[in-house]
Amino acid sequence: MDKILTLGRIAEIVGGELRGDAAVEIRSVAPLASAGPGDLTWAVDRQHAARLSECQASAVLVGSGLENGHLSAVVCARPDLGISDVLEYLMPPLPHPPVGVDPTALIADGVTLGEESAIGPRVLLQRDVAIGRRTKIHAGVVIAAETQIGEDCIIWPNVVIRERCRIGNRVAIHPNTTIGADGFGYNFDETHFRKIPHIGTVRIEDDVEIGANSCVDRGKCSETVIGRGTKIDNLVQIGHNVRIGENCCIAAHVGIAGSTELGDLVTLAGKVGVKDNIRIGNRVQVAACSCIAGDVEDGQIVLGIPAKPKSEFFREHLAARRLPKALDDIRDLIKRMKRLEAANNQETS
Amino acid sequence: MDKILTLGRIAEIVGGELRGDAAVEIRSVAPLASAGPGDLTWAVDRQHAARLSECQASAVLVGSGLENGHLSAVVCARPDLGISDVLEYLMPPLPHPPVGVDPTALIADGVTLGEESAIGPRVLLQRDVAIGRRTKIHAGVVIAAETQIGEDCIIWPNVVIRERCRIGNRVAIHPNTTIGADGFGYNFDETHFRKIPHIGTVRIEDDVEIGANSCVDRGKCSETVIGRGTKIDNLVQIGHNVRIGENCCIAAHVGIAGSTELGDLVTLAGKVGVKDNIRIGNRVQVAACSCIAGDVEDGQIVLGIPAKPKSEFFREHLAARRLPKALDDIRDLIKRMKRLEAANNQETS
Amino acid sequence: MDKILTLGRIAEIVGGELRGDAAVEIRSVAPLASAGPGDLTWAVDRQHAARLSECQASAVLVGSGLENGHLSAVVCARPDLGISDVLEYLMPPLPHPPVGVDPTALIADGVTLGEESAIGPRVLLQRDVAIGRRTKIHAGVVIAAETQIGEDCIIWPNVVIRERCRIGNRVAIHPNTTIGADGFGYNFDETHFRKIPHIGTVRIEDDVEIGANSCVDRGKCSETVIGRGTKIDNLVQIGHNVRIGENCCIAAHVGIAGSTELGDLVTLAGKVGVKDNIRIGNRVQVAACSCIAGDVEDGQIVLGIPAKPKSEFFREHLAARRLPKALDDIRDLIKRMKRLEAANNQETS
Repeated sequence: MDKILTLGRIAEIVGGELRGDAAVEIRSVAPLASAGPGDLTWAVDRQHAARLSECQASAVLVGSGLENGHLSAVVCARPDLGISDVLEYLMPPLPHPPVGVDPTALIADGVTLGEESAIGPRVLLQRDVAIGRRTKIHAGVVIAAETQIGEDCIIWPNVVIRERCRIGNRVAIHPNTTIGADGFGYNFDETHFRKIPHIGTVRIEDDVEIGANSCVDRGKCSETVIGRGTKIDNLVQIGHNVRIGENCCIAAHVGIAGSTELGDLVTLAGKVGVKDNIRIGNRVQVAACSCIAGDVEDGQIVLGIPAKPKSEFFREHLAARRLPKALDDIRDLIKRMKRLEAANNQETS
Repeated sequence: MDKILTLGRIAEIVGGELRGDAAVEIRSVAPLASAGPGDLTWAVDRQHAARLSECQASAVLVGSGLENGHLSAVVCARPDLGISDVLEYLMPPLPHPPVGVDPTALIADGVTLGEESAIGPRVLLQRDVAIGRRTKIHAGVVIAAETQIGEDCIIWPNVVIRERCRIGNRVAIHPNTTIGADGFGYNFDETHFRKIPHIGTVRIEDDVEIGANSCVDRGKCSETVIGRGTKIDNLVQIGHNVRIGENCCIAAHVGIAGSTELGDLVTLAGKVGVKDNIRIGNRVQVAACSCIAGDVEDGQIVLGIPAKPKSEFFREHLAARRLPKALDDIRDLIKRMKRLEAANNQETS
Repeated sequence: MDKILTLGRIAEIVGGELRGDAAVEIRSVAPLASAGPGDLTWAVDRQHAARLSECQASAVLVGSGLENGHLSAVVCARPDLGISDVLEYLMPPLPHPPVGVDPTALIADGVTLGEESAIGPRVLLQRDVAIGRRTKIHAGVVIAAETQIGEDCIIWPNVVIRERCRIGNRVAIHPNTTIGADGFGYNFDETHFRKIPHIGTVRIEDDVEIGANSCVDRGKCSETVIGRGTKIDNLVQIGHNVRIGENCCIAAHVGIAGSTELGDLVTLAGKVGVKDNIRIGNRVQVAACSCIAGDVEDGQIVLGIPAKPKSEFFREHLAARRLPKALDDIRDLIKRMKRLEAANNQETS
């Protein structure tokens, strides 16, 4: 971190209002709990703001009405977005290959390279691959025949993309991820599994980001689709023929089995498993470590194994915690019942 | 998809009986719900077949007795296998490296290459590696010393296979997978973990397929074994000394801990976790997201965390759903009990 | 396995006491159940030792007081450590690149290479990377600008390490693992996700081992930290800003979400998920397939989804198994209650 910003400059960057000393120097950004001199911190709510008086930061980015006199501040509508703006300014340059083709890259016949694209060392582009303008392909990436990649993409090192895939603009794919491997499909033929050929492909729309060491399998006879703006974390499995909508958020270790569809704005927290051939509606939210075994309607918040609506889950979950006591109650009731029955029998006899 | 098949040719390919126009042209294959003109679809049961009348496909592959008059059809015993046959014909050529050794591949002393094998760009074959006939090794693959790979295998890009492993014939290993890394074994030595050397290896038998970004660890002092015909999906972890039988089917994100044994024809659905040092019998089936904590006998269907037999799981699962109501019942019983007891006491007093 | 050790030599290696024939030849090591002639086996407790009489091994390494007359033996305090010593002697050489720089490696300006370091084929070291003495960088590894790696490390093939990371001494990172990719962080900006720049890094301390196909994300504005001596298995996800203490043990498929802290000596079994922004205390142990949703105090043993203390988990788990019977009891109580109430009403009427 060699760059330095003054607080005055930060007010300009985030389009905020300066409260305090414009000359304060900011070298980095840090959360409230660990910020020290030279750091800019941020506070998005009253709870955060209450802790500012103990904070050692040099300045704070706060929402309107949250500033206190303790620290020099910049007030802005969305401190979370403002911090991202500041981080962008502080960020050292990314280690992209320079524009042009590294002499160790292998470029087959029919490849087209957009203006200002950057093809790193030891990249392999097979025949008829197309790379868009300003796209960066890092070292060791393998892109198979006829795959097309749009503009302003970043394909990080050692990613493998199989043949005939379509990747949009401003897509980032992190290291060691595999796009377009065969789906996991077999017919059982009396004594053994017989592979189903996968002639389909993968389509990744604009503004998608896919983490490291993830897998998106190609379709059996059509496309596996990742919709525009969707963000996928590390170590995620997307099965063949899956169709994911726009602006979904899919955390690490999620697995989505074949031919399932997700709507738009779906959030799957870490380690969620989703059954094959089902439909998850728009704006559905699924808690971590859940397993979805059937269709989920628009807007539902679900959790559990198998996943159920939040209210139902918590009713059953709380009930389960009261179960040991309930079993004692039952034992007690049986005893008292016997006593009463005995007393009644005596009376009536 | 540039290939075109006539329906008459498809009847020959699948060994089926033509019902309708032999000249119908088929360009691709699609499931009932999305098939359109130029597509061949398929129907394997009465439920499927009932939806054929609304289907826009140009023709259908159906089981005997399921054809209706609506679409030109080919009747065959196993439409699912027939579709695979057709997909094989329609499949564009795979992007394999050409036969021979790419000039950028590094081939150490003592390596033997079978006839018609294909060694792609930037492959590293360390000393004494043996590659069988017609086997294809894709770009960026690293195979360490003394490993042997059989005939007709496909090792996709950027796979890493460590030293002294044995891989059979017709094995496919998808991109970015790691075979033969050290097992996760340490002795705790008072204040720290001390690594246990792993001098064992991995043996992968004929006709195994392993997905992308998966890991098969080497044995501690013997072999980790993947039995003949077993199919493994993406992002799967197979621990050291694990022994998997024949024709098993292991879905994405499954993890099998060290020294566990699986019989033949075992099915583990996605995200199943299996404890170390246990035995899973033949033909066992495990539902997605289950965790197996002990031995499972032949033929069992198990699920849950920890996994239990299906009937037991569902009995407890249904009971759990009735628990909130049961707690109300108990509260009510206690109230009524008190009332009765009070009444009885009054009488007897 | 071409090396042969005599039992006498083994007694020297492990610092143990010979009981039997010093000339017995040992070719390999095997557990009790599968050991045969030429093998050394081991027994760490009475249960193990009881099975020695049926064992076909040529000799046994046993704890004091456990030897029986059946097999030639070496007695030592910790047979588990002794076996590791023997495995180290039997281990064939690892397939490391030779000392020096492979002619196909790409070494940018400002890179420093320690004495006796070994840089394998097709490695890419970007500008200002520093590699310590005797460290081995295997084929296909990509290390981005300004990253520093200590002494005696092993970076296995196709690992990717992003810019500005700090890696200590005696660290091993297995194939296809990704260190320092961007954390999964976005701000939702009305209609879409906006990427949060990740200007932080990763710090991996001395004696850490990280398995194959795992991911350690870089911090947002500070470091993601893996503490000294911690061991991480395959396919593990460590989120941005996570801080893991010393000598932790983290099994396959574990995922730890952003900004969470682990103390020292924490054990996470396979497939454990850990929520973001929480604190796991020292010496905490978590059972396989658990999901930790809140802070855990020092020394706790927890399990379940969500994880709870062991005693609480088992009380609820056992209660759940008794629930179907309890529901029958309730039905029965209700019936009997009605009967009693009817009888009482008759009396009082």
